[in-house]
Amino acid sequence: MHATVLYKPRDVRFEERPAPTILTPTDAVIRLSATCVCGSDLWPYRGIQEVTAPMPMGHEYCGIVEEVGSAVTSVKPGQFVVGSFFASDNTCPHCKAGYQTSCRHREPVTGAQAPQLRVPLADGTLVATHDVPPDELVPSLLAASDVFGTGWFAAEAANVKPGMTVAVVGDGAVGLLAALAAKQMGAERIIAMSRHASRQELAREYGATDIVTERGAEGVARIKELTKGVGADAVLECVGTQESMDQAIGATRPGGHVSYVGVPHDVSLDGQSLFFTHVHLHGGPAPVRRFLPKLIELVWSREVDPGRVFDLTLPLAQVAEGYRAMDERRAIKTLLRP
Amino acid sequence: MHATVLYKPRDVRFEERPAPTILTPTDAVIRLSATCVCGSDLWPYRGIQEVTAPMPMGHEYCGIVEEVGSAVTSVKPGQFVVGSFFASDNTCPHCKAGYQTSCRHREPVTGAQAPQLRVPLADGTLVATHDVPPDELVPSLLAASDVFGTGWFAAEAANVKPGMTVAVVGDGAVGLLAALAAKQMGAERIIAMSRHASRQELAREYGATDIVTERGAEGVARIKELTKGVGADAVLECVGTQESMDQAIGATRPGGHVSYVGVPHDVSLDGQSLFFTHVHLHGGPAPVRRFLPKLIELVWSREVDPGRVFDLTLPLAQVAEGYRAMDERRAIKTLLRP
Repeated sequence: MHATVLYKPRDVRFEERPAPTILTPTDAVIRLSATCVCGSDLWPYRGIQEVTAPMPMGHEYCGIVEEVGSAVTSVKPGQFVVGSFFASDNTCPHCKAGYQTSCRHREPVTGAQAPQLRVPLADGTLVATHDVPPDELVPSLLAASDVFGTGWFAAEAANVKPGMTVAVVGDGAVGLLAALAAKQMGAERIIAMSRHASRQELAREYGATDIVTERGAEGVARIKELTKGVGADAVLECVGTQESMDQAIGATRPGGHVSYVGVPHDVSLDGQSLFFTHVHLHGGPAPVRRFLPKLIELVWSREVDPGRVFDLTLPLAQVAEGYRAMDERRAIKTLLRP
Repeated sequence: MHATVLYKPRDVRFEERPAPTILTPTDAVIRLSATCVCGSDLWPYRGIQEVTAPMPMGHEYCGIVEEVGSAVTSVKPGQFVVGSFFASDNTCPHCKAGYQTSCRHREPVTGAQAPQLRVPLADGTLVATHDVPPDELVPSLLAASDVFGTGWFAAEAANVKPGMTVAVVGDGAVGLLAALAAKQMGAERIIAMSRHASRQELAREYGATDIVTERGAEGVARIKELTKGVGADAVLECVGTQESMDQAIGATRPGGHVSYVGVPHDVSLDGQSLFFTHVHLHGGPAPVRRFLPKLIELVWSREVDPGRVFDLTLPLAQVAEGYRAMDERRAIKTLLRP
């Protein structure tokens, strides 16, 4: 088969690779219905995260099970499944506590920008839908695999409750879906921080009530102004830079909650400054597996349409263009059809 | 009157100072029944926090109201009151959210190592007991003013719930009372990190079920060992150094809670490392005012005896010896009788 490999910054190749096979009895092999490019794929693409060897790319996936190992009992060939970017056994103490991305046996899933994918720990990782979905639901189910699950965790980790004022830092797919999640959780006011007209529009459709275009200290001042000097009850940091983190913490009321769900790059927090802000801080790699049954249900019942973050659809063979479009911010997120 | 002033590191003087008076209509002046030396007083005493001008010392207090300003309505002369180290109006949005130490009008209370004290924002700051307490309750009521309230916040901020495994980093008065608070909140297992026999003993009497004497990475390993490799559900960081913070975060299970209640000195957190620990982090200057009614009730009903952290009692005039004893760790905490 042909699959996606990153050789060095901005050098994405779609080339012949061995098709995946069952390596251990807990594996499954799936045929992807769709896959996509993640904001986090842009870190190595842009050279911010080092590329030391050719990297098979892609960790967002959904599709039809083709084959399962002898130990797999919860999914079977022919079923449509969605999984997360970390495989997890879903039985260890960390999984049971709802932190499957800290599973004791976790394994990163890689190589999903391909027609077929091996998923380790299939029983703990994959969630089957009760039927093969109609094609129009596939983008939203794919979104559940990472960006929707991550946006959901952002809202959950920031303790979003009915009636709250919530701010979202970041207008990528995760930030937009964090706004949607906050809306689902009953937030009364949702302030999206964005400078891009098309993203502002989608943020509003997903539930944002206010848009703030300022950044840094000015962005913080604007949120304080919008909240009568108090600050937001919850701020969802969906970028992963020092500026976005400072902005999130600064915009939160004392006793409020800051979540952070993008891998922080060169971010450092001064203990004493953080202490006097009185914020709650929680985040990490989103335990998407915890939320998958709920998210699949929301998509299936057509209550939400997270797949709208895919504003560019390409054949998988054009994956390199998919990266370019996101890098240049021409696209929010690229869906790839194998 | 004579009161306590820190001139430079290790130079504590008990010298003539003007008696406090009502300066604004919201003030009260109280006559102290007892006061004490705080672990945080040792930062400037040891020269770790700079002393640029002579500092009136002391911020823990309880006593009899002598005089109130014309705007004060909730306390009156003759009443016994307990207050916190930050005066607060208890009506602003931050106070209403339970974060009185972030009150919009907060003022530090200073100069409490003295016979008399001016307390600003008396209505919002002071809590009167329903009667003048018997003398044997005074140390515990004084403890509620800071160390008990701070230990309580440590347990509250770390989300301690019945059945949990809780670790406490720090065996000062706050750490010991954090163990007591965790016990009150129903923790099943309380691991105190301490190397001092007398403090270990008090920790056990307050509810600690296990003692860990190792520190740093070894301390973390020991807690992991005690929790079958999982980590503690909640870790209460009651010191404020890089080592204690790293120890607390490292000893917590993914999804667990770390609280920190001592002002961090030269503490820095790496965003990416913190991200992958999956911990919740919350702390800050303890909003003691939120807890005072509850803590006074617990003391009054003799359910708890936080005053036992005072293992040295001196006449106020010997305050300098009180500092020395704590600095040399001969005393956990010094109570001063005016």
